[in-house]
Amino acid sequence: MTNWKDIDQKAKQWIIEAGEKIRHSFDSSLSIQYKSNPNDLVTNMDKEIEQFFISRIQETYPEHRILGEEGYGDEVSSMDGVLWIIDPIDGTMNFVHQQRNFAISIGIYGDGVGYIGLIYDVVHNELYHAFKGEGAFMNDIPLPKLDKVEIEKAILGINPVWVTENPRIDYQLIVPIVKKVRGTRSYGSAALECAYVAAGRLDGYMTMRLAPWDFAAGLVLIEEVGGSISTMTGEKLDILTKTSFFVGEKHLHKHIIEEYLNK
Amino acid sequence: MTNWKDIDQKAKQWIIEAGEKIRHSFDSSLSIQYKSNPNDLVTNMDKEIEQFFISRIQETYPEHRILGEEGYGDEVSSMDGVLWIIDPIDGTMNFVHQQRNFAISIGIYGDGVGYIGLIYDVVHNELYHAFKGEGAFMNDIPLPKLDKVEIEKAILGINPVWVTENPRIDYQLIVPIVKKVRGTRSYGSAALECAYVAAGRLDGYMTMRLAPWDFAAGLVLIEEVGGSISTMTGEKLDILTKTSFFVGEKHLHKHIIEEYLNK
Repeated sequence: MTNWKDIDQKAKQWIIEAGEKIRHSFDSSLSIQYKSNPNDLVTNMDKEIEQFFISRIQETYPEHRILGEEGYGDEVSSMDGVLWIIDPIDGTMNFVHQQRNFAISIGIYGDGVGYIGLIYDVVHNELYHAFKGEGAFMNDIPLPKLDKVEIEKAILGINPVWVTENPRIDYQLIVPIVKKVRGTRSYGSAALECAYVAAGRLDGYMTMRLAPWDFAAGLVLIEEVGGSISTMTGEKLDILTKTSFFVGEKHLHKHIIEEYLNK
Repeated sequence: MTNWKDIDQKAKQWIIEAGEKIRHSFDSSLSIQYKSNPNDLVTNMDKEIEQFFISRIQETYPEHRILGEEGYGDEVSSMDGVLWIIDPIDGTMNFVHQQRNFAISIGIYGDGVGYIGLIYDVVHNELYHAFKGEGAFMNDIPLPKLDKVEIEKAILGINPVWVTENPRIDYQLIVPIVKKVRGTRSYGSAALECAYVAAGRLDGYMTMRLAPWDFAAGLVLIEEVGGSISTMTGEKLDILTKTSFFVGEKHLHKHIIEEYLNK
């Protein structure tokens, strides 16, 4: 039988270790020099961190499979068995430009069910963590279940690009939402934006295209605080595909799906 | 003669003290209870912090004048003499919803010239600081002058609401900018967004309406790293009025003004 507690402990230990590697890679002065060739740096750190996780997982749990953004893991076409879904650096543009507002994201699934979600905001040293049935936490402080929020009082995570004409959604469906909510924010890391929803700092987060490694951990967190998860049309997410994505407090989520997105 | 170094030292000391007051006001569990009556809390903390600064300033520098968001300072209609422009909590919506991503902002001007800018990201304990002619700093680490950035590689701070129809600007001027830049972000605190521009984390920041206390400190920071400052039409800012606002790396700023906003 899978020992999820053991996996949880190992995953936490490795994510902290990986965060230290990233922090050490920063220059002590504010490192603008990276900007001249941003893609190299991202590639190197992304690769290094993903390979770090893969070697640790393969040593310890040779039977587990791994789906990683950088592609060093396995070819994964089903959710059978234990599957680690890893984004070594979520929010790469922030990583390069800001050296902050990025996260390591790890979701661990058993036969398609999310058991463990870990999102580590490396620079602010905030570890968001959820374990199926036991709740969600930030640095071991329990995150309360999400309270009902009306749309007029909601803060929504959404990138401005989705309220301009784009090939993925009729932007005129989005405009009235942006006008109705109390405020909108955009942080540029889907994993952090999911963690913010779980922590009640955003009441919802929507985007038109995410990959499994962007949201695998976030889903476990949001599930544990009673939030809702779907595509932009309210359908169930397929965890292994690129998809539109909308998470939020459940009343708000239902209201936006029914009154704005599917009307 | 005004002793700006003395003022600088005092202002720094008081802003750190004020930050401690705010931090102590937070509950140790993630304090969602504030949400039920958000405005009260903001009002109380805003007032308390503004009055803290006013009493310190009046004790120490009775001849200085104070312009504060909460209105406990002086009636100010000119920039003569030494003027403190204070936002006790910039990003009040973030303060209430997130207990983070807000800042204390203090700009200190002498006869209309910005001498000192202080923006304190309380929760992340990051103090952005500029002193006229001596540069800008984050926690005493010097911030380099801004490097030239092309629009295709720029990250722009802008709220999604400005790319929807609104009474302040023709949103169709904004849409092509949002589509052209590498990415957009929205943090919900003008002071922090200015600090991010000064630190090179955003290459520009634009908004349609800011008050003096929102940007007084940010201007000094941006000036010290060689950034440009204007209204959305490229005109000089009047520091004492509510105004549209656009700051950024100087080549990017010029390009956006000439090719997008004034074309």
